[in-house]
Amino acid sequence: MPTPVPSDKFTFGLWTVGWQGRDPFGDATRPALDPVETVTRLADLGAYGVTFHDDDLIPFGASEAERETAVKRFRQALDVTGLKVPMATTNLFTHPVFKDGAFTANDRDVRRYALRKTIRNIDLAVELGATTYVAWGGREGSEHGASKDVRVALDRLKEAFDLLGEYVESQGYDLRFAIEPKPNEPRGDILLPTVGHALAFINSLERPDRVGLNPEVGHEQMAGLNFTHGIAQALWHGKLFHIDLNGQSGIKYDQDLRFGAGDLRSAFWLVDLLESAGYDGPRHFDFKPPRTEDIDGVWASAAACMHNYLVLKQKALAFRADPAVQEALRAARLDELALPTAQDGLAALLTDRCAFEEFDIEAAARRGMAFEQLDQLAMDHLLGV
Amino acid sequence: MPTPVPSDKFTFGLWTVGWQGRDPFGDATRPALDPVETVTRLADLGAYGVTFHDDDLIPFGASEAERETAVKRFRQALDVTGLKVPMATTNLFTHPVFKDGAFTANDRDVRRYALRKTIRNIDLAVELGATTYVAWGGREGSEHGASKDVRVALDRLKEAFDLLGEYVESQGYDLRFAIEPKPNEPRGDILLPTVGHALAFINSLERPDRVGLNPEVGHEQMAGLNFTHGIAQALWHGKLFHIDLNGQSGIKYDQDLRFGAGDLRSAFWLVDLLESAGYDGPRHFDFKPPRTEDIDGVWASAAACMHNYLVLKQKALAFRADPAVQEALRAARLDELALPTAQDGLAALLTDRCAFEEFDIEAAARRGMAFEQLDQLAMDHLLGV
Amino acid sequence: MPTPVPSDKFTFGLWTVGWQGRDPFGDATRPALDPVETVTRLADLGAYGVTFHDDDLIPFGASEAERETAVKRFRQALDVTGLKVPMATTNLFTHPVFKDGAFTANDRDVRRYALRKTIRNIDLAVELGATTYVAWGGREGSEHGASKDVRVALDRLKEAFDLLGEYVESQGYDLRFAIEPKPNEPRGDILLPTVGHALAFINSLERPDRVGLNPEVGHEQMAGLNFTHGIAQALWHGKLFHIDLNGQSGIKYDQDLRFGAGDLRSAFWLVDLLESAGYDGPRHFDFKPPRTEDIDGVWASAAACMHNYLVLKQKALAFRADPAVQEALRAARLDELALPTAQDGLAALLTDRCAFEEFDIEAAARRGMAFEQLDQLAMDHLLGV
Amino acid sequence: MPTPVPSDKFTFGLWTVGWQGRDPFGDATRPALDPVETVTRLADLGAYGVTFHDDDLIPFGASEAERETAVKRFRQALDVTGLKVPMATTNLFTHPVFKDGAFTANDRDVRRYALRKTIRNIDLAVELGATTYVAWGGREGSEHGASKDVRVALDRLKEAFDLLGEYVESQGYDLRFAIEPKPNEPRGDILLPTVGHALAFINSLERPDRVGLNPEVGHEQMAGLNFTHGIAQALWHGKLFHIDLNGQSGIKYDQDLRFGAGDLRSAFWLVDLLESAGYDGPRHFDFKPPRTEDIDGVWASAAACMHNYLVLKQKALAFRADPAVQEALRAARLDELALPTAQDGLAALLTDRCAFEEFDIEAAARRGMAFEQLDQLAMDHLLGV
Repeated sequence: MPTPVPSDKFTFGLWTVGWQGRDPFGDATRPALDPVETVTRLADLGAYGVTFHDDDLIPFGASEAERETAVKRFRQALDVTGLKVPMATTNLFTHPVFKDGAFTANDRDVRRYALRKTIRNIDLAVELGATTYVAWGGREGSEHGASKDVRVALDRLKEAFDLLGEYVESQGYDLRFAIEPKPNEPRGDILLPTVGHALAFINSLERPDRVGLNPEVGHEQMAGLNFTHGIAQALWHGKLFHIDLNGQSGIKYDQDLRFGAGDLRSAFWLVDLLESAGYDGPRHFDFKPPRTEDIDGVWASAAACMHNYLVLKQKALAFRADPAVQEALRAARLDELALPTAQDGLAALLTDRCAFEEFDIEAAARRGMAFEQLDQLAMDHLLGV
Repeated sequence: MPTPVPSDKFTFGLWTVGWQGRDPFGDATRPALDPVETVTRLADLGAYGVTFHDDDLIPFGASEAERETAVKRFRQALDVTGLKVPMATTNLFTHPVFKDGAFTANDRDVRRYALRKTIRNIDLAVELGATTYVAWGGREGSEHGASKDVRVALDRLKEAFDLLGEYVESQGYDLRFAIEPKPNEPRGDILLPTVGHALAFINSLERPDRVGLNPEVGHEQMAGLNFTHGIAQALWHGKLFHIDLNGQSGIKYDQDLRFGAGDLRSAFWLVDLLESAGYDGPRHFDFKPPRTEDIDGVWASAAACMHNYLVLKQKALAFRADPAVQEALRAARLDELALPTAQDGLAALLTDRCAFEEFDIEAAARRGMAFEQLDQLAMDHLLGV
Repeated sequence: MPTPVPSDKFTFGLWTVGWQGRDPFGDATRPALDPVETVTRLADLGAYGVTFHDDDLIPFGASEAERETAVKRFRQALDVTGLKVPMATTNLFTHPVFKDGAFTANDRDVRRYALRKTIRNIDLAVELGATTYVAWGGREGSEHGASKDVRVALDRLKEAFDLLGEYVESQGYDLRFAIEPKPNEPRGDILLPTVGHALAFINSLERPDRVGLNPEVGHEQMAGLNFTHGIAQALWHGKLFHIDLNGQSGIKYDQDLRFGAGDLRSAFWLVDLLESAGYDGPRHFDFKPPRTEDIDGVWASAAACMHNYLVLKQKALAFRADPAVQEALRAARLDELALPTAQDGLAALLTDRCAFEEFDIEAAARRGMAFEQLDQLAMDHLLGV
Repeated sequence: MPTPVPSDKFTFGLWTVGWQGRDPFGDATRPALDPVETVTRLADLGAYGVTFHDDDLIPFGASEAERETAVKRFRQALDVTGLKVPMATTNLFTHPVFKDGAFTANDRDVRRYALRKTIRNIDLAVELGATTYVAWGGREGSEHGASKDVRVALDRLKEAFDLLGEYVESQGYDLRFAIEPKPNEPRGDILLPTVGHALAFINSLERPDRVGLNPEVGHEQMAGLNFTHGIAQALWHGKLFHIDLNGQSGIKYDQDLRFGAGDLRSAFWLVDLLESAGYDGPRHFDFKPPRTEDIDGVWASAAACMHNYLVLKQKALAFRADPAVQEALRAARLDELALPTAQDGLAALLTDRCAFEEFDIEAAARRGMAFEQLDQLAMDHLLGV
């Protein structure tokens, strides 16, 4: 049974284990967690790092003195435990001032405030060693057809990322942004709803190289999309800067289950992809321990996230190493997919009679792809049969 | 009551009114329609043009002579009626040879055949006057985690579009490609599942300017996404090359209802966007008259698509022109969204104490957005109250 | 333009207009509303009645004296305005003690407490004139496969309703129960997830006649189900005791939009059904004014719920009265559906050669159903064309 | 590794392995399978039985002589192999005559024909030994709000089942009906869309004892419902007469994946429930081998269905037998859920001050449910860790 170690690069947000269980229909079921305790416990469990929203660490509206104390205590805990802060982010959604959005709020002064709040926390993030800054625009959206001119809102969103990029460059920070898409909740429809929309948006920015993605398992699955396919496309574009691991049971409200819960098969293929693609960033768990749990359940749930990742990693490596699997992949002609379709160029393709005039379509159509056998091998590996 | 005229640019695919009603559980309920009859009837109804897959016009496996006859008869019907062919596309999904995809089939010879089949129909499309060539990769996908290496498949997809672009340029054709995304069906998961994923992909091509989108109402709604938002983002990127109008009732199988059926509110906002954004391409109906209908129902359904668009257009124009609406838009601060957040630049923002230190957050949070009133005005316009 | 009057039987929950806008990611955006103010404002708007959870009226943990004061003030407001209280219900979800459910909590003492809390509020409900008592079991469910033995939980749920029925009968109350189904949120999966599951469950109770349904528009639509079909089945079983009207945009988190927002077409068919079926219970709006709104927006939203119902009612009546519609219904053979299939009995059917041996299947298959034309007439009525 | 044997009661429909791969966008990819070959191959694989639609065995429109030959050959194959026919059903969906439904078609003569077609096949089913007759009303539904009066259609549906029940009793057949619910596809909305709706409907029939359910994994999952919960409720009502096992990947078109594919976790809990509840009917696989497969893939897929069931059964039994699990179930207070809430009756509950007045709510609220630990144990069993 594998045990998590820092080199596994497992990280957790303060807001994950610290979630008190407030949901749309119910009050908190757990007391607040002191960030220092969180750091200590995560280190004990074998984590690599911890991440935070500004307001997780420094309560909204805290005085300068309170702020300094909070940061100092946190930093000491980091020093003692060796935990890293590879990523930080801004809370632009809890306070009612953000009810219509932050970077795309109709109110200009709210947009300006949101930018300043972000910049302030970027300074702290860099100070604590973060190299990735996540932007989840959970309030950037609408429930009404006319309340948001989406093209204009995208102008504002671009303006915001261009300004933040300018700031980071002007300060000489070694920091990249990672946009986190989500289709809906808390807004009826959120801008940049999927991995794809965010990837496309990045290409329109002034500093596209500095901006990538932080996809979250459950967010794509809330749109019924194949998360592994989305991650593969993000990798293909060189844009997987960070990743949020959790679980979700299909198209419904955002569940933030522990990693491995929800769609288990998809979790297996995701780990298989991350490991075989050589993704070397943090494995960041953005989950919520169910509100049925007390604090023991919280830590059991956090430990299970890491355990499940390691178990799935072992299985994925064994799957790829299995000669029967390699044979099945050949039978499914994955090797042929890797060949260029027309390495000899267009002209040769156009004159190749075997490609069209003399192609035996019916014979080709009869060839089986042998996918069921391959998939069943994967399933047997997953189940440990 | 508005009547469709060619300048409305309404177009229909041969395969739409020609759908015989074969579904996964049932046989055809209607006889085949002769393309010539389709052209004639569409012209009578006020359409602007007609579109086709190669196999709609020339039955798969037809001889050269049959092909010539079919094309000649079709062209004559176009000449007689004045109907245009602004778009064409390739059938890369019906024949069993495409069961594992076309441009991304694991079998290299299938990929080569698919390219040649496409190129052949591009020649015909251009000959008939088309300036847009749609690519729906309905079979490019998978149901099994290991049966498709998505990053490699995207390499093959890029290779295909680069080759097609090279061909079109080499021939001097005035033709652009429009990719049509879809999340699933007939494959469990399809590559480039949404408007966003396809927009992102285009940026990686050798000739990105020649490739844009052909989004379809129902396809985005099958992922629970806001279609109008997707179109707005496509317009923002300058990539709305063509559009497929139809109806869908939520996340389920692909319904291809007539335009206006399904999510009526979304149809209103879509027309409002297309008209206010000055989209001037074809309004292409890609729908399937329900298999309960006989041929009279088919033409009633086709006429209703156009009627509904025109009715919604009238309403959208009246909505935007209504002084009460303009007042409500101001109350909702849409004018403020149009102002740059920091037209005075980053430095000014950083030193503006009103933006942060002296910003009265609580007062800002108390301001209502007045969106319900605005939305209710829209609803009253839609309902003709 | 129709104006709401009490005989329209429009009712609102205290918790609807009183919702402060707390959501899973954000704090309240509006101050609390005094129930007395709510009663007054609803009366001014033309409502018939008001409904409440115990904790809406009497804050959880209030002393006996506070309770008496709250009830007395509320009753006075009712007397002054003439507003009725046709329904009440219990809050068995906000307090953390209900985190694993109420009537089906694994903890027996929580179940006992939940029953007593309910009984206490039943007394008050009856005192205030309510004849319907709603039971929404929002916390009766699970996120984990083994945490709830569903068959045993259904035993407990039956036990609870049997006990409540016994209590109500023992007191001689004129009160019926109405179960409100929901598929998920706040639990991963909720017991009795749809109208159908609740209807089936009722048949197993000791007093099935005393228990019916309170279906909510958005709850069925969260499972992608046709709400109007569900209401039709509930009516068919004689079990539509009450109804919760609101709006929802497809399969996602529970949106509780104002009535008429979300799926407009479905709202039209719902009103058409309620009015043509002679449903004479309250039209109860269970919605949440979006948190973007201030208090003016709240009342605008409440007024719009009633306005939209009345507008749709006018349109539905006009649709049914239109001779062209009646003709189209005949063309679609709705009159034939109303004929018994075998009014002459089984024996006659078995020997009728026209029914099988001599039935011209192909001719029957060719008959069109003329549904598109009928549906387009409905759409034109809806749009006011 | 367990091997299937007839006592496992695995059964397959002729239409499952015999599916030729025709889908809404593509032609058949495999040749037809002779039912005799199917029987032989299934017997070789260890199956217990085979099931059929009338038209699977006897092509639609066959002469009496062809019919006799087909039945005779089939019966001989059954005799040789020992395979049973525990269930049969009617094809009331493929022929265009059923385009608007069968038992609820608007056309009365179609309804009469559908009943006669069904009765004819009931005779054959009984002759071949079937004791369950499945009714999937896939075409009983609508895409248009006014095209079906749902209450009237339910009258017709009740009439049909009452007539069929009368017929079966009059013949003295030992045969029960099992209704198979489905939310949509091929109709936009299907009547009796879920397990719950069908359970409720049965209570209104003349012979409710003779009618139960045949729920299908994918059908409930197409509505986002928890299939295991639905089966638990069906068992609770004593109505699980038969079951269709397959796989589905969330809310989308009907996928009919092999059992074990799709939602693996749900498959585990389903097998756990069936085995612990003592369900002793057939384990019927209603799946479609993907159209990418040739005939070898078909049989690999069929074998995998049985293999996966047996593997999951082993794991479920081990899970329940594990002392650590039993301890975790106690920690989660499943034993307390099994205690009556008020075994001492209503009066005692009403006077028990510990139940309300003196109940320490806050202390109760603090108790953790320990569900995460329990669920993680299940996951480790499932993964074979």
